[in-house]
Amino acid sequence: MREVAIVGIGQTPVGEHWDRSLRDLSVQAILDALDDAHIARADALYIGNMLSGELASQEHLGALVADHLGLAGMEAIKIEAACGSGGAAVRSGALAVASGQQDVVIAAGVEKMTEMSSNCTTRYLASAADGDYEAAQGFSFVAINALIMQRYMYEHGLHKEDFAPFAVNAHANAVGNPHAMFRRPITEAQFRAAKPICAPITLLDSSPMADGAAAVILCPLDRAREFSERPIRIAASALATDTVALHDRRDVLFLQAGYESARRAYRQAGVGPDDIDLFELHDAFTIMAALSLEATGFAERGQGVRLAQEGEITRRGRIPICTMGGLKGRGHPVGATGVYQIVEAVQQLRGQAGDNQIEARRAMTQNIGGSGATIVTHILETMD
Amino acid sequence: MREVAIVGIGQTPVGEHWDRSLRDLSVQAILDALDDAHIARADALYIGNMLSGELASQEHLGALVADHLGLAGMEAIKIEAACGSGGAAVRSGALAVASGQQDVVIAAGVEKMTEMSSNCTTRYLASAADGDYEAAQGFSFVAINALIMQRYMYEHGLHKEDFAPFAVNAHANAVGNPHAMFRRPITEAQFRAAKPICAPITLLDSSPMADGAAAVILCPLDRAREFSERPIRIAASALATDTVALHDRRDVLFLQAGYESARRAYRQAGVGPDDIDLFELHDAFTIMAALSLEATGFAERGQGVRLAQEGEITRRGRIPICTMGGLKGRGHPVGATGVYQIVEAVQQLRGQAGDNQIEARRAMTQNIGGSGATIVTHILETMD
Repeated sequence: MREVAIVGIGQTPVGEHWDRSLRDLSVQAILDALDDAHIARADALYIGNMLSGELASQEHLGALVADHLGLAGMEAIKIEAACGSGGAAVRSGALAVASGQQDVVIAAGVEKMTEMSSNCTTRYLASAADGDYEAAQGFSFVAINALIMQRYMYEHGLHKEDFAPFAVNAHANAVGNPHAMFRRPITEAQFRAAKPICAPITLLDSSPMADGAAAVILCPLDRAREFSERPIRIAASALATDTVALHDRRDVLFLQAGYESARRAYRQAGVGPDDIDLFELHDAFTIMAALSLEATGFAERGQGVRLAQEGEITRRGRIPICTMGGLKGRGHPVGATGVYQIVEAVQQLRGQAGDNQIEARRAMTQNIGGSGATIVTHILETMD
Repeated sequence: MREVAIVGIGQTPVGEHWDRSLRDLSVQAILDALDDAHIARADALYIGNMLSGELASQEHLGALVADHLGLAGMEAIKIEAACGSGGAAVRSGALAVASGQQDVVIAAGVEKMTEMSSNCTTRYLASAADGDYEAAQGFSFVAINALIMQRYMYEHGLHKEDFAPFAVNAHANAVGNPHAMFRRPITEAQFRAAKPICAPITLLDSSPMADGAAAVILCPLDRAREFSERPIRIAASALATDTVALHDRRDVLFLQAGYESARRAYRQAGVGPDDIDLFELHDAFTIMAALSLEATGFAERGQGVRLAQEGEITRRGRIPICTMGGLKGRGHPVGATGVYQIVEAVQQLRGQAGDNQIEARRAMTQNIGGSGATIVTHILETMD
């Protein structure tokens, strides 16, 4: 299998882009990534997206974006795995390069969520859950996460306020990220006073709906220096699934697919949690941050929250997470999020993270679809 | 690059399955394919689908189907390329095996189109076109094809009735296919008398909306005999794109992506049109059959219809097409169609096509998304 490197990155600011369409955002991020790799075209495009059909009446997004890039002709497909679509698109691109059939490929993610009222968007987001047995009963995505959080608090004797460090850390890191949606810090007092969405989840446990696109350029590792002075090696890429419906899960407090995809990734890269310098995890809700830390071996069962309380998730801690703001601070354009995580990890590994720079040679990303039914884990490394 | 073989096939009957859900159909086809390969599980699932979000309020289809198969844990993603989704899913599966990272994978396609009134389905199908510049103006899919057909007739001095042989051949072949939706022959007189849908397209130019799922099992070629006595080699797999909007195309009467993906496929397989024994093409409308024959080199520009009139597309002709009924006779569950084509080509190459059996050692399939913006071409060969 050919090894694969990332040689270009691009991203739009995350926010409410009422004046930009799905295709505009995609093209902006991809052209930036192509520029970053000093190229004008690629062999193929894998674009992660969840809701273009529902929100913009647009399927066939691969061909549409290739066309709008001025690159009609190239291979192009859309990859969908709910909120894990972006990570899955990067993995699809990496497999295409690894296969030897494509050399230089674009892996991108895009979501435009402000096209409709938030009411409809909430309904469509529930299509990441089991349509027949969860969504059709009115079980929204925030409700699913609220049940998990409630049970976690009960099992581990925690209070709602204990989750504050995740949101405080995410917002603190977003301040230094020019692409982040919420570039303002929040305090623990603000967290405690936040408006409830679906108890125990409040506004400040929740990542925002947003528009955005991000892209990376992939090529064979042995050609990486042609395109970049600081190529980043994809040391591991793994995707695992779990039951979609929460009621089918053996243990709703353990991300089995997070554990399994991390286990495969650690094995591919020949490393363990102790070898990871930063972790871009999927804090769609604060509870998911805790569960992701536990599934990947950074914390024992029930100890994810304590790790945060001890300050170990900040940029100066043992395992910095959400170093550019995470889903909470940077924003969560669902099908693009997995690509943003990888773009941000590359920024850190290249030393291009500005005020948020940490010392890092190896980064992990974990992108979650649904309430954990699809989880994609990548490990990235510098080549020096 | 590892070579890839098909070692299992499965398909549901195509029709209006009011009593079967999206997941039921998927599982039925996949279990049949696993049985056919004498296995109970696989490493990954790539499932082609276009409209699960719109028609069944269900995204996250990869994880859902893996779960419902009892195989939660395996890698699983959805691939979308409009009506080319099925072919793109087989290609994604083939690349995963070729990369060396997966060994035994399922490539499947599913669509459930009878979930809603046909009015809505027509609206959603238009999401394969350019949402902003075509669909939003009321340009439906049949209207797009009608414009192309009208222009083709004008340019080449043809009449509507000249297209009859495509529909007559498809229905004649569907009679012998137990999985086909319309197992009844039609006559040229019936074709001439058919009800108009959007002139010059009538009911008998058009493939039907339908439900169905199909699946193939892929593995490395050098392991193929472990799973099958008659493995089929994937000699070529290629996907190309073109502009999505018709008004952006240099020439609306030439399937540039069909030409380009066929060119790449011929080169990969080291063959040309003369070496192909049968061609499962994408006759969503009769005009598309003509254009596909021309893009792939079986007919000169404007001669696709004549090839059909001369009887060369029947099972006894120079290049049999739609040998199990094609989209017109077997039915067109959009995201599944590309997989049905490959399943049927495998049936022919294995000698399992029953009454419809032809002598064939090498087959080509071509699956079209939109009005030609995504076209996937595969070449399959026997290994004897």
